[in-house]
Amino acid sequence: MSLPSRHALVPFVSVDHMMRLVLHVGIERMMLELADAIEADFRRWPDFDKTPRVASHSDIGVIELMPTSDGQQYGFKYVNGHPSNTRQGLQTVTAFGVLADVATGYPVLLSEMTILTALRTAATSAMAAKWLAPRDARVMAMIGNGAQAEFQALAMKAVCGIEEVRLYDTDPAATRKCAANLAGRGLRIVSCTTAEDAILGAQIITTCTADKQYATILTDNMVGGGVHINAVGGDCPGKTELHRDILLRAGIFVEYPPQTRIEGEIQQLAPDHPVTELWQVITGQTQGRTDAAQVTLFDSVGFAIEDFSALRHIHQRLQGAQFFQDLDMIADPDDPRDLFGMICRADLHSSVA
Amino acid sequence: MSLPSRHALVPFVSVDHMMRLVLHVGIERMMLELADAIEADFRRWPDFDKTPRVASHSDIGVIELMPTSDGQQYGFKYVNGHPSNTRQGLQTVTAFGVLADVATGYPVLLSEMTILTALRTAATSAMAAKWLAPRDARVMAMIGNGAQAEFQALAMKAVCGIEEVRLYDTDPAATRKCAANLAGRGLRIVSCTTAEDAILGAQIITTCTADKQYATILTDNMVGGGVHINAVGGDCPGKTELHRDILLRAGIFVEYPPQTRIEGEIQQLAPDHPVTELWQVITGQTQGRTDAAQVTLFDSVGFAIEDFSALRHIHQRLQGAQFFQDLDMIADPDDPRDLFGMICRADLHSSVA
Repeated sequence: MSLPSRHALVPFVSVDHMMRLVLHVGIERMMLELADAIEADFRRWPDFDKTPRVASHSDIGVIELMPTSDGQQYGFKYVNGHPSNTRQGLQTVTAFGVLADVATGYPVLLSEMTILTALRTAATSAMAAKWLAPRDARVMAMIGNGAQAEFQALAMKAVCGIEEVRLYDTDPAATRKCAANLAGRGLRIVSCTTAEDAILGAQIITTCTADKQYATILTDNMVGGGVHINAVGGDCPGKTELHRDILLRAGIFVEYPPQTRIEGEIQQLAPDHPVTELWQVITGQTQGRTDAAQVTLFDSVGFAIEDFSALRHIHQRLQGAQFFQDLDMIADPDDPRDLFGMICRADLHSSVA
Repeated sequence: MSLPSRHALVPFVSVDHMMRLVLHVGIERMMLELADAIEADFRRWPDFDKTPRVASHSDIGVIELMPTSDGQQYGFKYVNGHPSNTRQGLQTVTAFGVLADVATGYPVLLSEMTILTALRTAATSAMAAKWLAPRDARVMAMIGNGAQAEFQALAMKAVCGIEEVRLYDTDPAATRKCAANLAGRGLRIVSCTTAEDAILGAQIITTCTADKQYATILTDNMVGGGVHINAVGGDCPGKTELHRDILLRAGIFVEYPPQTRIEGEIQQLAPDHPVTELWQVITGQTQGRTDAAQVTLFDSVGFAIEDFSALRHIHQRLQGAQFFQDLDMIADPDDPRDLFGMICRADLHSSVA
């Protein structure tokens, strides 16, 4: 085959490459880097095009495109949500994403994002907790010990200095899996048999369960003062984890209100219930935690800017490294007007394998 | 590396694969197949989710996502438009697309679409001309001899039986390129030095020029009765090719009115000017050409369903063929809850090259 020019080639980070890159960098260091990258983009929040996600719903799931741009680069993520997939041994959520150059419209990166979304979700949680949790928080309750749990625990250790993680899941097998994966990583792991037990002494309570219907993982009387709740699992209409009464006495912090009002815990509240945008806390435009006894809540649903930050970080991380392959993805004729001639001339070159 | 399971692999059609597939099938046969595939999907137009494209504009271009779904499969195209790219030797338009299974949300195909868009645009034009052009049309004028011209000529030959193509471009070098590429393919090629000369005796007049501003490639007195105008080049706000007076006396046929009113030739007309949806002609719900003397106009802007049809056709065409490579794009842990464990275990396997 004739060699495509440099412009025709798009670096692709496969699942295998992403795993090796994460192991090469180290999971905790990757979490620190991603939290920094996301925080840097939250600081310049007004620079971004913020489009609602473009969703295609079916009876059993949803496929979404999540685009954003800072005027220099453009990124989008393709992500599906199909809770019934696990019954066939498939992932509930899979994702991939693309970063492109706004000046030319040419893609500059294609990456798997199932793993990268898990990383950026945990990094965002830890970044928010750094700004909102009580000072000197050292204990986190982790309620829901599924695919996101280990990432949350290690991000909170790396970014916030969490020393003890108290695990609880309705399925003890999930807790065992999570405890085994976290063993020997410098965290004190306590496996609990009730949610009440898990939150004992915790300054950070992370909920990340997979219930599709309105659920009440935390009731009002379970949650005392002086805690930060990191609610990760409620992320679509009809899917919530917290009792409404907790929301009513918490300081609520969100990513992008128009999206969170539809998808987050606050879908249980009036549409004008006051919430604070996290980026305004980070830029100092508004206060985060007001006092040590306050209950703060990060009502996390995941926003396109976090994916953009993560794609940009991976793109930078690839420079000089070998964790990608080039894809011949962009037709690049010598004469832009001669696309047809390029096809015909392909015949003259020897065949690819 | 440990081998990913079948679900983790997404077939990828590179630019080189697409060129070889087109040459393997034959360009005219590919045009016939694509025109049939697009027509079949136009026949079931109401089955589709029709979303407006999601555009991200900058000073010098646009990046768009064009999704659609028929409830069984989901497709989207990424496409940019950057007229100034040619100055740097880059393509004005590049594209790629993804086809996915609605039941699982898993992608089943990733394909280059710069070439495929050129093919589907020409196939759509020819399909429309089959329904709208005068019977026994044998001569086409091709005004604008850029990247789309050869595809238009061969699609009109394959689908409509065109025997003579009369070429005109403001740049004689473009006409020379087009004539050379079309030589020996069974068409009579006539190179013309004026647009007036090109349309002499033509029953189909195709305009496909790259002017960004309101242009008048065809004036009213140039166009007599009994012709079909296939207007391809006007495809964004501010970019038109026909004088308004032609539109006022033509029967106007469009793909998706909400999009065409913004992007097509009819942006020059009142927002309630009557137009006919092409799919309704094909299903027999409404009349196409009313008489031999009528001027019909296909105001083509390109719609997501055409890309969907093209992606589906390529996906079918790949079965049993070798024109793709598998990409390890979807994380597929043995236990869907153990994404973290999958990453850690990647360390145990031998490294990829």
